[in-house]
Amino acid sequence: MSGPDHLVGILGGMGPAATAEFYTKLIRRTPVTRDQDHLRVAIWADPTVPDRVGAVLGGTTDPYPAMLEGARRLRDLGTTVAVMPCHTAHVFLPALVRDSGLRFLDMVAETMAALERREGTAGRVGLLGTRATLASGLYQDRLREERFDVVLPEEPTQWQVDLAIRKVKQGNPEEAGQHLDNAVRAMARTDANLIVLACTELPLAARHLTAVGHSELLDPTDVLADAVIRECGGLPPATGRRRAG
Amino acid sequence: MSGPDHLVGILGGMGPAATAEFYTKLIRRTPVTRDQDHLRVAIWADPTVPDRVGAVLGGTTDPYPAMLEGARRLRDLGTTVAVMPCHTAHVFLPALVRDSGLRFLDMVAETMAALERREGTAGRVGLLGTRATLASGLYQDRLREERFDVVLPEEPTQWQVDLAIRKVKQGNPEEAGQHLDNAVRAMARTDANLIVLACTELPLAARHLTAVGHSELLDPTDVLADAVIRECGGLPPATGRRRAG
Repeated sequence: MSGPDHLVGILGGMGPAATAEFYTKLIRRTPVTRDQDHLRVAIWADPTVPDRVGAVLGGTTDPYPAMLEGARRLRDLGTTVAVMPCHTAHVFLPALVRDSGLRFLDMVAETMAALERREGTAGRVGLLGTRATLASGLYQDRLREERFDVVLPEEPTQWQVDLAIRKVKQGNPEEAGQHLDNAVRAMARTDANLIVLACTELPLAARHLTAVGHSELLDPTDVLADAVIRECGGLPPATGRRRAG
Repeated sequence: MSGPDHLVGILGGMGPAATAEFYTKLIRRTPVTRDQDHLRVAIWADPTVPDRVGAVLGGTTDPYPAMLEGARRLRDLGTTVAVMPCHTAHVFLPALVRDSGLRFLDMVAETMAALERREGTAGRVGLLGTRATLASGLYQDRLREERFDVVLPEEPTQWQVDLAIRKVKQGNPEEAGQHLDNAVRAMARTDANLIVLACTELPLAARHLTAVGHSELLDPTDVLADAVIRECGGLPPATGRRRAG
């Protein structure tokens, strides 16, 4: 199946700014000379899906039925490759794949593969994400299997991450950047080789980082966009490295 | 019908960067404090739709069947308000509405209404857009009905507009900005009160304008995003004015 035969399905809205940012990245990273070289994309963005973090951590309203509904819509549109640019929502990915029959590229698995390509195995990896993503062990379990040391944020750092995410969701990426800056500086002091931005709101805040030079950042949405382009027969650019902290 | 009951359908991909930019604007301009306050959005972005400009000007492959297919998909998903962030494609809007039964907000009509709210009737309006949008008279006819004087670009200026659009489509908005800069400077010399960016690629180039201060720019994608938000029961911010030229 070549590019024009594929339909990329984006199960989004969690949150909307992260979805738009992912779609923008997918477009920017696709090598083209004209509109018609781009991938066909369908986006289902339902921001009314109940809060994923609360549900994973504390049993608030279950977001899964609304997520499954979105996956089914994308499937019925003819999606050949689906993605979900939300890390916390990946807790529900195995169930979504099973219940929708939709073929998803797993952002966590793609990020692990990218890490292994870059760092080999082993090394010291810092994780910034929602409390639910970290509590679920989504990344840690796979990182430890590959003999990476995992550095998790201390509570004051996690609080800065929470604020960064909230500010992006409220449409204030500049202020989010200041909070992320604080978090990245704190993580840089832990000697992590590299920091994974394991929440899809964080790349929007990362544009406004002022501290540059201490730690390397890995953005899983870059990795996921490139995985989609490869899957659809294209050649993405080399995943950009970025130093900040 | 209130916000959460609406489904905004975006018939996009013409081109993809303009679609992502429109979606980003819709998100930024929606007043929210959390994800769940945002509008539900479905996007059908098929960039393989044949070139609209060539079809309008010179009878190249008809893009209409692919556009109608997209409109039908959005309709079947339950779209309550549809938009098409591409001016040239608005040549096909009456047929699309008739054949899909989908309710569209017309970007040209919304822009005309915004112009009348701002300028009253009459005044001198410059138009920058594709050769097809200008040749079709989409804007001029309605502007003249409202007693606006219309200023169209001279050939060397149109050439700069063509290049700006092409560069955005090729993923190079910075270079596009230089071409748009040339076009805006030329239009500013015609004493237009204000210049309408009547091609949805141009706002992406406009971010990179260096010349500021001579002419006011009106971005119909801002107007359209606000119309969607109002239609869905929200209160958009006042449409921003911007001086450049």
